[in-house]
This record gives sequence, C-alpha cells and structure tokens, in this order.
Amino acid sequence: MVVVSVSRYLYTRLAQLGVRSLHGVPGDFNIASLDELAKSGLKWVGNCNELNAGYAADGYARVKKIGALASTYGVGELSSINAIAGSYAENVPVVQIVGQPSRKVLQSGRLFHHSLGDSSTGVFADMHRRVTAAQTTLDDPLTATREIDRVLKACIDSKKPVYIGKKVEIVSKANTANERSYPRRRGTPSNLFLVYEILRKLHNAERPVLLVDAGARQHGLVDIVQQLMIQMNIPTVTTPMGKSIVNESLPNFHGVYDGADSGITEMVRSADLVISIGAIRSDLNTFGFMAIIDPAVEISLDHNSVVLETIKHEIPTKAVLENLIRELKDTELRFPSLPPLRPTKNTLAPEVFPEELRRSFPSTSITHEYLWPRISSWLKPKDIILNSSGTSNVGICETKFPPESLGISQVLWSSIGYTLAAAQGAALAAEELGGGRRVVVFEGDGAFQMTAQEISTMLKLKLKPIIFVLNNEGYTIERWINGPSESYNDVGDWNYAGLPHMFGAGNDALKTYKVETRAQLESLLADSSFGDAPCLQLVELRMPKEDAPLGVKRLIEQIVTKKAPVH
Amino acid sequence: MVVVSVSRYLYTRLAQLGVRSLHGVPGDFNIASLDELAKSGLKWVGNCNELNAGYAADGYARVKKIGALASTYGVGELSSINAIAGSYAENVPVVQIVGQPSRKVLQSGRLFHHSLGDSSTGVFADMHRRVTAAQTTLDDPLTATREIDRVLKACIDSKKPVYIGKKVEIVSKANTANERSYPRRRGTPSNLFLVYEILRKLHNAERPVLLVDAGARQHGLVDIVQQLMIQMNIPTVTTPMGKSIVNESLPNFHGVYDGADSGITEMVRSADLVISIGAIRSDLNTFGFMAIIDPAVEISLDHNSVVLETIKHEIPTKAVLENLIRELKDTELRFPSLPPLRPTKNTLAPEVFPEELRRSFPSTSITHEYLWPRISSWLKPKDIILNSSGTSNVGICETKFPPESLGISQVLWSSIGYTLAAAQGAALAAEELGGGRRVVVFEGDGAFQMTAQEISTMLKLKLKPIIFVLNNEGYTIERWINGPSESYNDVGDWNYAGLPHMFGAGNDALKTYKVETRAQLESLLADSSFGDAPCLQLVELRMPKEDAPLGVKRLIEQIVTKKAPVH
Repeated sequence: MVVVSVSRYLYTRLAQLGVRSLHGVPGDFNIASLDELAKSGLKWVGNCNELNAGYAADGYARVKKIGALASTYGVGELSSINAIAGSYAENVPVVQIVGQPSRKVLQSGRLFHHSLGDSSTGVFADMHRRVTAAQTTLDDPLTATREIDRVLKACIDSKKPVYIGKKVEIVSKANTANERSYPRRRGTPSNLFLVYEILRKLHNAERPVLLVDAGARQHGLVDIVQQLMIQMNIPTVTTPMGKSIVNESLPNFHGVYDGADSGITEMVRSADLVISIGAIRSDLNTFGFMAIIDPAVEISLDHNSVVLETIKHEIPTKAVLENLIRELKDTELRFPSLPPLRPTKNTLAPEVFPEELRRSFPSTSITHEYLWPRISSWLKPKDIILNSSGTSNVGICETKFPPESLGISQVLWSSIGYTLAAAQGAALAAEELGGGRRVVVFEGDGAFQMTAQEISTMLKLKLKPIIFVLNNEGYTIERWINGPSESYNDVGDWNYAGLPHMFGAGNDALKTYKVETRAQLESLLADSSFGDAPCLQLVELRMPKEDAPLGVKRLIEQIVTKKAPVH
Repeated sequence: MVVVSVSRYLYTRLAQLGVRSLHGVPGDFNIASLDELAKSGLKWVGNCNELNAGYAADGYARVKKIGALASTYGVGELSSINAIAGSYAENVPVVQIVGQPSRKVLQSGRLFHHSLGDSSTGVFADMHRRVTAAQTTLDDPLTATREIDRVLKACIDSKKPVYIGKKVEIVSKANTANERSYPRRRGTPSNLFLVYEILRKLHNAERPVLLVDAGARQHGLVDIVQQLMIQMNIPTVTTPMGKSIVNESLPNFHGVYDGADSGITEMVRSADLVISIGAIRSDLNTFGFMAIIDPAVEISLDHNSVVLETIKHEIPTKAVLENLIRELKDTELRFPSLPPLRPTKNTLAPEVFPEELRRSFPSTSITHEYLWPRISSWLKPKDIILNSSGTSNVGICETKFPPESLGISQVLWSSIGYTLAAAQGAALAAEELGGGRRVVVFEGDGAFQMTAQEISTMLKLKLKPIIFVLNNEGYTIERWINGPSESYNDVGDWNYAGLPHMFGAGNDALKTYKVETRAQLESLLADSSFGDAPCLQLVELRMPKEDAPLGVKRLIEQIVTKKAPVH
C-alpha cells in the first residue's frame, strides 16, 4: 500500500498507460498539481493555448494510443472543447483533465473568476458529456482512485476522449492506492462459422476487393489487416481516412478509392465481393457518399461487428480475422489476374466550374497534380505524415505512402488548424518511442494561420518536423465551393519562412525555405541534408491560387451536378 | 414589402443595430451567405481562427454595444464557445451565427464532415444554451424573420450573447420582410420614495463614498453616473472591472478600491454610506471578496434593482438616478472635507513570499511600480485601453485614466489571450465610429502567445493600435501563486518585435520597438510621432521575471495567510 495524492495517482496511471508528456496550459486551478508530474514520471509540455494543446494531445494519442492534456476551469476547458469533439468524432483516446474550483467556492454562491457570473456549477463538465465517453469529477478522496480507473478504462476501451474534473482542494490530500499496473482486458472467443462463410465467399468471388478504412487503425487491427492483405493477395484499396494502414508498396495495393481515379472507381464498382474493414462512411471519406459499397456485395467488418448479407453479427472482429488468416494459410485462393489499372483522370466536365478556376498554369508551377505523386519517392519508411483538411488531405491520396508509415488527418471532423498542433504531439510521441521516425506536415496557409504559434512549442521541445506550408493565398478549397475571387476566401499575406525564427528567438537550430518552382523543390528534395536535418524545418511552397487536386475538382463537379448530396 | 433572403434579413437587422463588420471564419456551411453581406451594408473581417473571431466580436461590442461573428457547424462554433461564454459572463451582446448542414443531411443519418460521427443532431446548439441568452435554429423561411427579431431583441435587452443557427438550404430562399428599423423599448416610471430615502441618507452621512463598478457600463448608466459623481461631489472610487466609467481627472476621484492601496481601503472601510452602482462581487474584482461592502452601510443600485437596508426594490435604476440628479440640483449637500489620502503601500509582509520572489531590481528596470503610474500622463482623452488578465489588469489599477476613456479587460471570465483579439474588434469599432480614438493594449507575453496571429487581421484592416507586450518570461502571475522557478510557468522565447513584420509580408506601415530600460521607455513616450503614428505599433517591454504589481502581491499575501478564500 502506497500513500499518494490524487494527482499523483492520476499521473501515475497515465504513465502506466504510456503517457510520458502532459500537454496543456497552467492556470490557478490546476497549477499546484503540476508539481506532482515529475514524481509520476511525466513531463509538462506547456502549449501556447488550450485548443492547440487539445490538438497536440490528439496527435500524440494517434502515435502512442493515448494522450492527455490539463487546463483550467471554464476558459481552459472551453478553449479546447473543439479538439475534444474532434477526438470523439475520430475515435482518439484523449484524457481532458480540468482543474476546478473547490466545492467550498462553488457552493458559496460567490462569483469567482472563470465562472459565468451566475453561481452556476457543472455547466462546462455538462458540455463535455456529449463529446466524451466517460466523465468524473474528483471531489472525494475516498472514491477518487476508483473513479480515475473507471474513466481511464472507458478511454482505452471506447477509444474516445474522457473528462476528469479535479477539485483543487483534494489535490494534496493523501490517498491510498495500490500502484499495480493497469488491468488488461481478456480476449474473447471467435466464431468460426463466420470465418468459413467469408472463406466460401472468397472462393466463389471472381473480382474481390479488400477495402481498408480508418476504423482498422482505431480498433487496433493494423497488423492483422496487413497480414490479411498479404495472405488474401486480392486487390486492395484504402480510403482518405484509411490511408497508411496497409503497405502501399505491395503489388496488390491499388490506391485510394476516393472517386478521383476512375480506374480504381471502376475496379471497386465492378467487384463482386468487397471485404471492408473499419469503414467510416462519412461524406468526405466516400466522395460525397458516392463511394459507399453496395451492401449486397460487401462483408463489412468493424470493431465489434461483422455485417454479412446485411445481417449484423456482434462479435469482436479481431478474433474473426485471426482465424481467417489461420485458415487462409491452409487454403489456396487463386483469382483471375485483373487487367492492369489505367487511371483515366481526364474525364472532368470543366464547364461546370467558374471561369476563374479554369485557367492553366506554367509548367514550372508547383501544382497539385505535380506535387502529390512527386512526394511519394521522397518519403521514407516509418514516416509520420500529417495533412490538413482542405486541398492537402485530398491531394495526399495521390501520394504513395512508404511501408510502416502513419498518416494523420481529420477527414471526418475536419477542423482546420488541427494539423500543425497535432504534429507537435505526434513528433513528441514519436521521439519518446524512439526509432528516428520523421514527422512530415502538409498544411494549407489558411489552416497554418490558425495555430501557427505551436511552432514555438516544437522549438522548445527541440522537435524536428518538416513542415510544408502550401501558400496559395487563402482558402482554396472554399474558392472551389463558393466565391472563387471573393475576398472572404483570402488570408493575410504572411512571411511563412520568416515566422519560425520569431518563435524561437536566438534559436539557430531551425531552417526555413521559400520554394516557388518545381526545379527549386526538386533540388531541395534531392538534398539529403534536408531530408535528414537534425532540426525543425519549414518550407513555404508557393502554389497557384486557383489550383486544386483532382479529387477536389471531381467532388465539386459531383456537387454542382447534384450527384453528391453533401450539404 | 421587400422580398429578401433570410441571410439578407439577418444582416440588415444587424446593420440597423449598428454592426458594420461581421467577424468570423468562412466554412462550407456558411460561405454562400457571405455573398449577402455587402448588399446588407456589412463588411467581412475574416479572422485567423474562430476563438479570435469571438474575442474580436466581444471587443467590438464593448465599443459599439453589439458585435457578431459567423462560423461553421461543429468545428467553428466550438472553437469560439469560450469567447461566447466570456461574453455571457461579462454581459457583452454578441451574436453567434452558425452555418448548419441542411435538415436533409442531418436527418439522413449519414456521417458528414464536422459531425461527431454518430448521426446526432443539435449537440453544439445545446452546448450554447448555457452560455447564451436566447437561441434559434432558422430552418423555416416562414418563421425565420420573427425568430431573428426575437433573438436579436433578447441580445440587446439582456446584454448577453445569443445563438443563431442557420441551415444552408434556406439561405437563398426568398422571404418577405418589412425592413423597418428595430423597435425601441419604452421607458418605465421611477419611484420617488427611493430617491428621497437616498437623499436622506446622503444628508445624514458624514463619510459617504460613491463606488462605481462594471455593471454601470453594462446597463448603459455611464453618462448618468458621471453626472452623479459631479452632482454629489463625494469621494468616488471604482473597481478593477469598473475602471474608466467615471472621469478619473475629477478632484473627487480617489482611485481603484482593489485592496492594493491602503489609503483607499481605509477610506471605503470607514465610510458610513457607500452608494455602489453596478457592483460585480467576483473574487478578482473584490480583492478576494475582502472588498465587498458591508450591506449595513451600502445602497446598492444595479440594472433593475435598488437594495437599501438589505431590502431589494425591483425597479429600473436609471430612472431612480435621473430623479436623484434632478433633486440634487435643488439641494445643498456639504460633507466635511476628508483628510488627503496618503497611500501607505509598504505594509506588505514579504516573508510570506518564496525567496525567488523577494529580490529587488535595478532602478533602470521597467518594474510594475514604475510602469503603471507612469502611463497615466501619456494616455489621452478618449483612449480605449485594453489590459490582459494577469499582471496587466491588476497593475492598470494604478494608472489614472483620462476623461472619456474606455477600459476593456476580462476581470471575471479572465480568459488569457482575449485581449489582443478583442483589440482588433475594438479598434475596428472605434474606427467605424470616427473621432480618432487610440487603442492601447497592455498584454503579458503568455497571453500574447495565445492569439498573436490576430495582428495579421489588424494589418489587413489597416488598424493602428499601440500594443505593449510585457515580456517577463512567462506566466508571472502564476509564479506568484505556485512554482516561482518552475518551468511550467515559462513560455517560449519569442522575438516579439520581429513578429508583426511576418504577419504583414511587405507591409511597411507598421513599427515595432524593443524597450529594456526606463530611459528607453521615457524617450519613446516623449516622442509624439510614437503617440500619434498612423500605423500599427508594437512595443516589447522587457520586465523583470519575478516582479508583480502591488495588487498581486497583496492578494497573494492574503491568500497565503488564508484571509482571502479564492480557491
């Protein structure tokens, strides 16, 4: 039996779960508890603001399976609630820790700072109920440890964020806690009849396809899906959200099924069996719902369910897949070889676009059509690649990812500004795990402006991401939706390459570049001292204002012609 | 009868109420409606992110009595909800306009971007219920105009933010609307017995004091309170939140009753009558509740109530004060002249502070003790002065404000980062009103880092605030609360003077300064080209890391010695 404070207990539990760094911003309702961090084996990050801290904890959790942030009552927790909602939507386990005023203060009816000025209590915790999987307010030392364990378990089990309110008065109160390691869940039996049914369908199929989506990563199926792709050896595609889960250098990988490439589209649409794993059927992940698979030909495996011939079997998918792989080793599946894919990308109807968006660009310009495929060969195995909502996370579908890479983007929640701050968390997590993984960021200028100051935190932590800022003078994806030349789609004209130097006064360990032509980019990418620099690097890429990736153009074409009901 | 779209109707109503600029960030659920702005006489601001837009709309509303922002579903509205909560706490009328997905999309059960991924609807609007005075979701063109009027009226009447959700599908639908100007409320009768009772108490008092707090501004009593101060001619003090409401250059103004100045404290505590107007009895506005007036000697006038001998009379205060002033003109009040106040500031018990916080500084250092009184003579009539939560909004209590100035700070909600973004809104509002008012900002480095990019918006709009960044290497106010030397109170080392140049690439119309000594600051303040420059200016003030204003030291002393129960 070890006597520890409640904060110490919480931080120790987080450390046992793999958290090594706590993101957040100090405030007077949480600051005293930060003294307990070092004793629990945690470091403090200290972000520029709470929204950025929430994004960073999410990025960290996508690499290390769990992340956490601490902030203060009212002002702090509400500033980060958008990030928590994003983690909820995208199934990322993040622990939101909020320092709260003492019960004495709350119940006094007096007005205290960070309150709504009307002696209400519990309002902000209530707001979190809808965007977290479990909540607790620690105000009783006798139940605090049990409550912490209950909520942290819900975080891991649900892969969703949770909320822990912590009254300041109990922070330094002693409590008994047995610091055993966190209990693991036990396995569950599989169901062989489903496995045989899947095998039967595979044997009978002539044009089967494996479709891997983001749920596969969220529910810990990455390794098993990679094995499956090799064992089954059938044509495999991913989605925008599912990118980087399978090994894209295998010969049976065909690309991203996002509607942009008509060869892939044709292949999936003509399939007589689609085994989909972890499907997220959101608008931007399914080309405006047009890429949703016909249930008649689909076997859909999700976290705890298998849908087969439209009947849902509630059963843990992992065990099904393990048995499937075991059985596949004893069988010989042979499929007629498919004709090689020929992307026929030029079937756009440009006449649906406004005049301003139809001009062509000099061949020296860094266009989307050039950029995204070009990046493929520059990326390295194990790279962590972050893409912002907008043109970047559509364009990246045309980039082939190296093996064991990790793609991070918010295709569902799509909060612009997420990416740079998430990169701070991802880079920190990668460094803690070791192995020299690079963190590469592609972010549009509009998104970059939202959270730019988090470069300061990266410099403080001596992180070494490579950040490409796509400067195309504003919200280009919005130009394609409405108002191509309207000033509401413009952003301020920043000196992106100069900015990081201001965030690290006297910091020589950073490099920035301004790249305007393909030739300049080629020479930068060819320079190995760029690819492996021991410092933070930022590259401002000047791109044409009106240019967009093919995937964006195709989606807009579908919306304009009323085929994709996105709004 | 004029036929207009719902958006056009909403924007026109806002224009009629005095809004000329709409803050916000475009998104695909609100972008089409932005085309209606210009036709309605509104300009688009375009902030760097939504939280900043919310802060800016609040700053704008504090100058122009109403402000508005537009953002998109989920990601946008949640990013700004902390700003809306702050407007709610501090009684600032702000209209939160949120572009929402169509009913068709919401009811389809499909996953769309910016959703929580679980086909829930109404979640984010629900979250706003607790931090707005009225809400509506415009999804029916037949009721939309009535709903808009209802909610806008609630905004003006309650002086609180309101929430308007706008489905995209009805934006361009025609609607009938009679564009009459907004109906004004009618006056209510006064109650003379209260007026005579106040007069009687005034006649009998020997040591009366007038205490003016922020409610006086929130409820439109500034002019009348200024008259009252002259008519009564009794010693007058304000609070941290009430600063700038009365004319501080009048001889009967004695300063801020914040516990820092023991002369003022003694005067108020020994008063036999305190007429308090618009009292906000929050912790940081009452020196940890220690400055709350004894109800036995207090006449407390608030928006719609007068509390006299602890009995609450529900009656509009304005009419009471109008009659009081009328009666005072016919009477001759004479009070025994009070002894001149002698601030005795050196009664701190430094032994309660940690060693690190007790060192003294060279006489060349820009200390708080030097800075805040020094600023008084540099300020000009009508200046708008913004102060960030932390050392700045405590220190500013030692600055004497010029006549007709407006002080803006969030003493109750205390969201750090608010100030710079609010300054953008305040500067824009001031420019729209004309009259050449200066906007002067004092903000700590930690707060500045939260929303620094809003300088970009100021440059885009050619605003000309003078921004003092108090660089004391971190969250100094937190150092005084906990961990004076702990790294969690540090922030990144920025080049503050260099930064604005990055936010306005190629913008020559801005000036920045780095000031490390009193002599440098003196020469800058003496330079008239600085005080009246036709461009944005930023001054980095290097201040000692451990120094704090007397008010902070005194409050901490009270907390340490358990006299002020703030937590």
